Formats: sequence, C-alpha cells, structure tokens
Amino acid sequence: MLAANGRVLAEQVSTRGLLSIPAGGWPAAFDAEFGAWLAAHPGLPCLMAGMVGSRQGWVEAAYCACPAGLTDLAARLCWVQPERIAIVPGLAIEDHGLPDVMRGEETQVFGALALLGLSEATLVLPGTHSKWVTVRGGRITRFATHMTGEVYALLRQQSILARTLPADDATWVAEAFDRGVAQAQVPGGLLHHLFAVRTLALFDRDDGPSLACYLSGLLIGDELRAQALSAGQAVVAVGSPQLTARYQHALAQRGHPVRRVGAEAGWTGLLALSATVRG
Amino acid sequence: MLAANGRVLAEQVSTRGLLSIPAGGWPAAFDAEFGAWLAAHPGLPCLMAGMVGSRQGWVEAAYCACPAGLTDLAARLCWVQPERIAIVPGLAIEDHGLPDVMRGEETQVFGALALLGLSEATLVLPGTHSKWVTVRGGRITRFATHMTGEVYALLRQQSILARTLPADDATWVAEAFDRGVAQAQVPGGLLHHLFAVRTLALFDRDDGPSLACYLSGLLIGDELRAQALSAGQAVVAVGSPQLTARYQHALAQRGHPVRRVGAEAGWTGLLALSATVRG
Repeated sequence: MLAANGRVLAEQVSTRGLLSIPAGGWPAAFDAEFGAWLAAHPGLPCLMAGMVGSRQGWVEAAYCACPAGLTDLAARLCWVQPERIAIVPGLAIEDHGLPDVMRGEETQVFGALALLGLSEATLVLPGTHSKWVTVRGGRITRFATHMTGEVYALLRQQSILARTLPADDATWVAEAFDRGVAQAQVPGGLLHHLFAVRTLALFDRDDGPSLACYLSGLLIGDELRAQALSAGQAVVAVGSPQLTARYQHALAQRGHPVRRVGAEAGWTGLLALSATVRG
Repeated sequence: MLAANGRVLAEQVSTRGLLSIPAGGWPAAFDAEFGAWLAAHPGLPCLMAGMVGSRQGWVEAAYCACPAGLTDLAARLCWVQPERIAIVPGLAIEDHGLPDVMRGEETQVFGALALLGLSEATLVLPGTHSKWVTVRGGRITRFATHMTGEVYALLRQQSILARTLPADDATWVAEAFDRGVAQAQVPGGLLHHLFAVRTLALFDRDDGPSLACYLSGLLIGDELRAQALSAGQAVVAVGSPQLTARYQHALAQRGHPVRRVGAEAGWTGLLALSATVRG
C-alpha cells in the first residue's frame, strides 16, 4: 500500500507466502514487489508489519514490551535499510510467568484507534489466533491470545465431529450459533461441551449447517467467557467482515456494543506510525 | 474372553476394527472369532459391550436411560440370538437439554465397582473421549464426556504446536505436566492457555518433551477443573496403566486419592452382568 499526505495512492496484493521466500531471498522479493514504488518516491519510508519480522521472516525484529504505544513502536523499529525500510516490532507480554506475543496486530490496533478516535479501548482481533487487547492512555497495556480459529478448523475438518458437518461454512444459522455461545457460559468445560456436537447429530436434533454454527458459537463463546468484560462494556472488533460479524453477534448476546473495523486498520496503523517516526 | 464360575478360562484378542466388517458380515465375523467357544460351551451366554452395539455395529442397541444399574442393563440387553448372544446397551443422559452417551464404559464401571466392592463412587475413564461417572446406590446417576484425548491428539500432531513437539510421548516430564495441570486452574480459558505451548518454545524456555507433557497437563487439568469434586474426594480411574497414571498424578496434585483399575474392569463387568441375567 502506497500512501502520502494521509491518502492511499496505490495498493498491491501478492499471493506469495512467507514460506515461499528462500533464505536470503527477501531483498529480491521485496524489490520485485515494491522496487518501482521506492524508485518513484525516494523520500518516503517503507514500514512493514507482521510475520516479515518473525524468525522465518526477513529480519527477526525483537519484541517490544508492554505497555507500548506508537512512540514505543517508532523508537524500536527494526531498520532493514537505514531511514528507508523498517519492520514494526511485535509485542510481548508476561502473564503468570508465561509469555504471549503478537506480530502485526499491534499495528492494526493503533490503526483502529486512529480511525475511531479512541485512546482507551478493549479490542478483539479474531482469527487463527485471536488477540484480545486492552488499551489505556493510547498504549497497549495487556493482551491475550486464544487459539480459537485454529482449534475450530481442526475440530471442523479432522475430528469425529467433522463427520456430520458440511464441507464449508456457507450457511449461517444464527439460532444455532447463539445456542453455542450460551452453552459455553454453562459450567462443564469446553472439552465436554464440544461432545454435544456429536450427540446432537447422533439423535438427529440438528442438521450439519446448524452444528457447524453451534460449534463456532461454543468456541467463540468460550473465548468471550474468559474475558473480564464489565457489564455493557464496548468492544472494538478488527478483522474480516465475516469474522467480526460473528464476534459482534456473540458479544451482542452478552450485552456488549461492538464497533467493527476492517482491513483499513492495517494501513491506517502504518500511516500513524509513519507520522510518529517523522515527528 | 471366556469365563465360567467367576474365572477367566481363555482370552482372545482380534485386531479387526469395527469398520473392517462389511454390512451383513457380523455373524460370520463373530463365528470366525468365537464359534469354537460357543460349540464347546453350549450352556454359556455371550455378552458383548461397546461399539458392536452402535449404528456401525452388528445391531444398534437402544441406549438405556440413567440412573442405570446392572439390573437395568440386564433387562435391556439386546439379544442377537435369544438366550445365547446379547449386546449390552449403552447409556444416555440429558443435561441442560443436551444428550450425552457412552457405549462399553458402563460395563467397565460395573466391573470396577465389583472389583473394589463399591456402590458409591466417582469414576473417570480416560481416553479419546473421557467419561466422568457418578455412581450412587450401585447405579450410574450422572456422567459427562470430555473430548480430551482427541483434542490432545489433534493439537499434538496437527496444530502449530506440533512443530516443536517430539514425535512420540516416550519421555515423561512430571514437573512440566504438573505445571500444565496447575495453569489450567488459572482463569484465562483453555484456548488461551494452549498458546503458551507455542510461546514457551518460541523463547526456548522448555524443550519438546516438556512441552508435550505441559500440553497434556493443560488438557487433563481443564477436564479436572470442570468436575464438581469436593475436597479430598476419592476417584476411581479405569483404563490403560499409562493414562490412569497421568490422571492419578493430576488428581493427586489437587488432593484427590485415586484407585486404579485396568483391563480387568471390562470382563469383570460382563461377568457381573451375566450373573445378574441368570439371577
């Protein structure tokens, strides 16, 4: 994404995955994708966020400790080419002596905050590894990862539950999803609740699309149950429209108003960071 | 297993799985395995338990409702050949409007009770789908299934966590398992706790065998957390020595004494049921 004066001038999407780039191949891959932009705009810095800064990426960018705001990220940019190309550091935090990490989501968080004009917020960034993020005074003070999306995919496709589920999630059954979210709040434990997806099929009480939505509701509901949200607390959901809609639905059932932000959170975050770097 | 006068006379193990038997092929498969025994002992009834009574088995044996004791099972045997060959019914129960089921474990439960001389007990039968069972006055009054073993296998072999775990569970690291069990009692949710298996590897704080045991402890600990056990309550663990040892270890950490019963629970249960049938 190419931006100047707060506006997006051009966008480019590559289907090349991180793991398709051979060792030492990052400069060439970068040049192939963005060389023309850099040549045309010699004064602009280039910021990158996400897995490009992981151990499997271009350069491993050291994690920044929390609390962290835009100025902390700007101070800890990992410069690949001085004053020209930098990688945004991911964040790390310790909770009960256990580490948690994010890479890329920190940039989306600051983008969402800029878009909504917030400096205090609770955000969820759903996905393979969902992130719940607390922001106070414009800085990320806490966050926690949940393996919700990955566990859903495994159960959905490879467990005994898969036998009675449809091939895709094309059919949305709100009532079944709601039942799953509600059931996840009942004591008994997630590992127990999951088995009902099997028994409901066994006794022909639900069809495949309903069971898939029920399973999704159980997992997202379990994720919500683990959050210490106060009554009526607002949540910002950042991510794809399909996923944030599910979280909005689940959170509404629990009495939480939700504002949703899409892909614009990413580039808005990079722009905000760029403005911070340049003062 | 061939038994008479309360003694085991012979045992036979077949490696044929349920799904290897074609439709209509059960009488022939049974005759190939046990025809000689039946011919040699024309007066003995033959009882079968487990998935042979499922929809994919020989005959679908209707579930028996709880509470259920030996006399209830005896009255509801599904006779394949009158007074000769019968399938023990599985059990079904409703909780919060959701069904739960077992097939085969009911027989092991009554075997374990007979072996230990108990008519009141809390039992766990760990496995792919662990069962927690409450027995009052010699009858199963409650039970709940947890998909612990299946979720462990999926995460262990197919999730992002698999990347840093060893190929098998040959190395037992009690300290790491204990940490997992303890961490599962901390608020945050299982889907969150699981991600620490990834981050502990990322920061090189644990080696592969430790992480596998930590993961196992997290899942078994989550299963324990869901049980409404009173302080110091005794638990009977029924199953393979490897699995019941892990549960004993986890329960001991939580202050619960454990008695373990192995494969003898199955045939002892069938013998007890046979004695009930014949008065």
